[in-house]
Amino acid sequence: MRILRIWPTSLWTPSVFQMSRMAQNVYIFSGVVCYLLYYEYSYISSKRIAHYYSSKPQPHQFTILVRGIPVSSGSSCSETVEKFFTEYYPSTYLSHSVVRRTNKLQRLTSDAKKLYRRLVHLKSETNPQRRSIRDGFCGLFGHKVNVLDHYGKKLETLEDNVRMEQLSVAGKEVPAAFVSFKSRLGAAVALHIQQGTNPTEWVTERAPEPQDIHWPFFSSSFIKRWISKLLVVVAYAAVTILFLIPVVIVQGLTNLEQLETYFPFLESILSLTVVSEVITGYLPSLILQMFIAFVPPIMIMLSSVEGCISFSQIEKSACIKMLCFTIWNIFFANALSGTVLYRFDIFLDPKEIPGILADAVPAQLLIVYAPKYDTGGRFWPTVHNSTIFSLVLMHIIAIGIFGLKNLSLASSLIVPLPILTLLFNEYCRKRFLPIFEDYPLECLIKKDRQDQNDPTIAVFYNKLSTAYEDPALMPIRHPRSTDDHNSPLLQAGV
Amino acid sequence: MRILRIWPTSLWTPSVFQMSRMAQNVYIFSGVVCYLLYYEYSYISSKRIAHYYSSKPQPHQFTILVRGIPVSSGSSCSETVEKFFTEYYPSTYLSHSVVRRTNKLQRLTSDAKKLYRRLVHLKSETNPQRRSIRDGFCGLFGHKVNVLDHYGKKLETLEDNVRMEQLSVAGKEVPAAFVSFKSRLGAAVALHIQQGTNPTEWVTERAPEPQDIHWPFFSSSFIKRWISKLLVVVAYAAVTILFLIPVVIVQGLTNLEQLETYFPFLESILSLTVVSEVITGYLPSLILQMFIAFVPPIMIMLSSVEGCISFSQIEKSACIKMLCFTIWNIFFANALSGTVLYRFDIFLDPKEIPGILADAVPAQLLIVYAPKYDTGGRFWPTVHNSTIFSLVLMHIIAIGIFGLKNLSLASSLIVPLPILTLLFNEYCRKRFLPIFEDYPLECLIKKDRQDQNDPTIAVFYNKLSTAYEDPALMPIRHPRSTDDHNSPLLQAGV
Repeated sequence: MRILRIWPTSLWTPSVFQMSRMAQNVYIFSGVVCYLLYYEYSYISSKRIAHYYSSKPQPHQFTILVRGIPVSSGSSCSETVEKFFTEYYPSTYLSHSVVRRTNKLQRLTSDAKKLYRRLVHLKSETNPQRRSIRDGFCGLFGHKVNVLDHYGKKLETLEDNVRMEQLSVAGKEVPAAFVSFKSRLGAAVALHIQQGTNPTEWVTERAPEPQDIHWPFFSSSFIKRWISKLLVVVAYAAVTILFLIPVVIVQGLTNLEQLETYFPFLESILSLTVVSEVITGYLPSLILQMFIAFVPPIMIMLSSVEGCISFSQIEKSACIKMLCFTIWNIFFANALSGTVLYRFDIFLDPKEIPGILADAVPAQLLIVYAPKYDTGGRFWPTVHNSTIFSLVLMHIIAIGIFGLKNLSLASSLIVPLPILTLLFNEYCRKRFLPIFEDYPLECLIKKDRQDQNDPTIAVFYNKLSTAYEDPALMPIRHPRSTDDHNSPLLQAGV
Repeated sequence: MRILRIWPTSLWTPSVFQMSRMAQNVYIFSGVVCYLLYYEYSYISSKRIAHYYSSKPQPHQFTILVRGIPVSSGSSCSETVEKFFTEYYPSTYLSHSVVRRTNKLQRLTSDAKKLYRRLVHLKSETNPQRRSIRDGFCGLFGHKVNVLDHYGKKLETLEDNVRMEQLSVAGKEVPAAFVSFKSRLGAAVALHIQQGTNPTEWVTERAPEPQDIHWPFFSSSFIKRWISKLLVVVAYAAVTILFLIPVVIVQGLTNLEQLETYFPFLESILSLTVVSEVITGYLPSLILQMFIAFVPPIMIMLSSVEGCISFSQIEKSACIKMLCFTIWNIFFANALSGTVLYRFDIFLDPKEIPGILADAVPAQLLIVYAPKYDTGGRFWPTVHNSTIFSLVLMHIIAIGIFGLKNLSLASSLIVPLPILTLLFNEYCRKRFLPIFEDYPLECLIKKDRQDQNDPTIAVFYNKLSTAYEDPALMPIRHPRSTDDHNSPLLQAGV
């Protein structure tokens, strides 16, 4: 009804020709977007394959993560893995690292690391006063002691604790292991074919890069992870829907008259121009921004509880959550405030399209990130899907708006468009998506054959067999000599 | 409103206790069904694995179907397949059979087969009169000729045509081939890992048993099959919805009063007890049965157009179509006639449940079929899913009916039940479904190792390399001597 009020249909009744022109514009726009999407998908696919061919042997290409290892009471997890893979992959199996519960150890090593940094900092201090503290209550009373000795002793105790915990951790096996193979094909076979007769045992998945692993997740079992995944879905839905509350409040703040009706005592204050400008202009966006700022950390928290095994997976999952959240909330916020019309009016006046695009495009949906993890272009399908979703949403809104404006011909002419777009997406899924899920056998074997002629492959295999050791389990050694200021802080792995 | 008329709420207002008892009955029933489903799924899974372990080497365990072979202009399809698989599977590749366009050849061989049967039948004929016909118009005029000679010449001509067509068919290659491997693992690797960099090329799928292949399907291309699949979905939806028309007509026939109003001249005839009994009692079920009898052949026709590669796939697909059709139509027919209430009244009077079940169960939800194709229990997931669907449908109807009867507590107590049932189904999908999709690596390797010690495996490999030849391409030879009455009709492959 609101839309009709903005633009009464009685003022202008478009001809059949004009209506088909409007529909035609939507078709042209969608066609161009689909063409660009296809071209881009094809281009990024070829880049992904080229990137793989040019890559050096990397641990994660040869390694899989195995979960749900069925440990029998007589043997350890490590023995079970060794037995299974030497039996079924005699020619390609290389080594494995069983995952251990190291939450406590991780805390201890991180404390030791912090203390050592402080110590190094103090050693570089030239003022002798600062090198001593009192050993009493809050460092205020008691004898003066040399702070270097004090921290040195504390660090020694911590290191002893770390060593003791490292010993005790050896028994705290989680039924999960990183299994490395001598060839990429070996890893791919183990990844793609169900291993044991019980599909919840020997569950295999791609291993992340060693430095990308999110170690704490491993403590939980299959059923625990399943439940926490479910809870995360529920929590995510709750956050997404509950976010409408601040949006509605913000919408309320822009309406001063209503505020005055509910809180009559505010009338005198609200009549001041400054106050009303702050409340209607600044406060709503402040509150909204404040709430929006809370959302990404919440999404990252939800994703890390979900059972992701690597930081890159957590980030990807949080990004997708954030994307859905933004689409849902911005669409709703827009729908509530009616501004959704803005973008669709361009179809009613086709001559303005180039002008509007010329304004809008350089103003941006261009931010450059430094890559932390190399996904090899695996994020593209998400971008593609989001664009397809936006296109279909646009079609549906266009159908609705043309319908509301009594442009029924234009409206019904657009009906086949979302169906065609979804069929196009289905074709793209078949044509390109598998490339982004895994590398084809052709590539795997070609790379494996390259390695056979590579003289450094033996060195790589050596590195590979220790690449997936938990860094918390590495021997800890902090050099004590004062000459060691410029040596690395932690000798290995931390 | 109709339901309220049958059972006015004013007559009985159930207490909170009674309402929770009703809900409790639905919970107990669903719980028992889920327990039985879980037990059955687990039992059939173990049977499936045991059946696999006890099976002899069979061609379809070692063979895959490859489609979308990228034939370059210089070489034939057969050469391309040979080159690809000898390069990437040097140790496990055994042989291949390229599929050829044999529609015409199949028609010719089937004609020759029929003619030969007729000839054999005539040879066994003792009456010499019947061994001669006239060679003129419709066999009525012209010279009398020996019918044996006549048919013999005709058969010779046909056989010559078959041989010529066999020669010309050699060039009519379809870009598809059955590729056989020396081990089950080799076939599994080729099946599960994407082969080429373009996912629409070298598409692999499981090969059916050789005698189960539906050869005519191969003539169509990827895009043709995709379109025909789409058309089948539309046709299926149309058939399913249009079937409501006879259902509505049948519903009309049971209402004599309405018939008399529309056709007043029938009043005198309808007043006869015999006529009214036939019309209301016999005619509706006759019409409905007649229409229902048409449905399975229609479904089989739709499934064979769909592009299934084997008869068993056609039957499975037709069965699933029939199942959905029946559920949809029976549910609607029931909903229209209001009899859906019958089954749910049992929850309102829990004491009758055992009695009703005791009556209903032995009356059946037991038909034994002779197995034509060995699916190894692969149909069970369909049965499981249908049962889950029925359970959830029951919950939704129960929520609706309890709501209509103002038993709002009972209604809302049941709300979590469909969600729990779907979660249970999700767990079963994770726990059992992969076993029905493919055999695990453990089984494959154990079976492969058994074969290595089997002295007959060389003979099996020999058989395997010709198992997937199109029967239409086999040499045709019909023995002519009159002593050959008891020899097989066609020497090879037909």
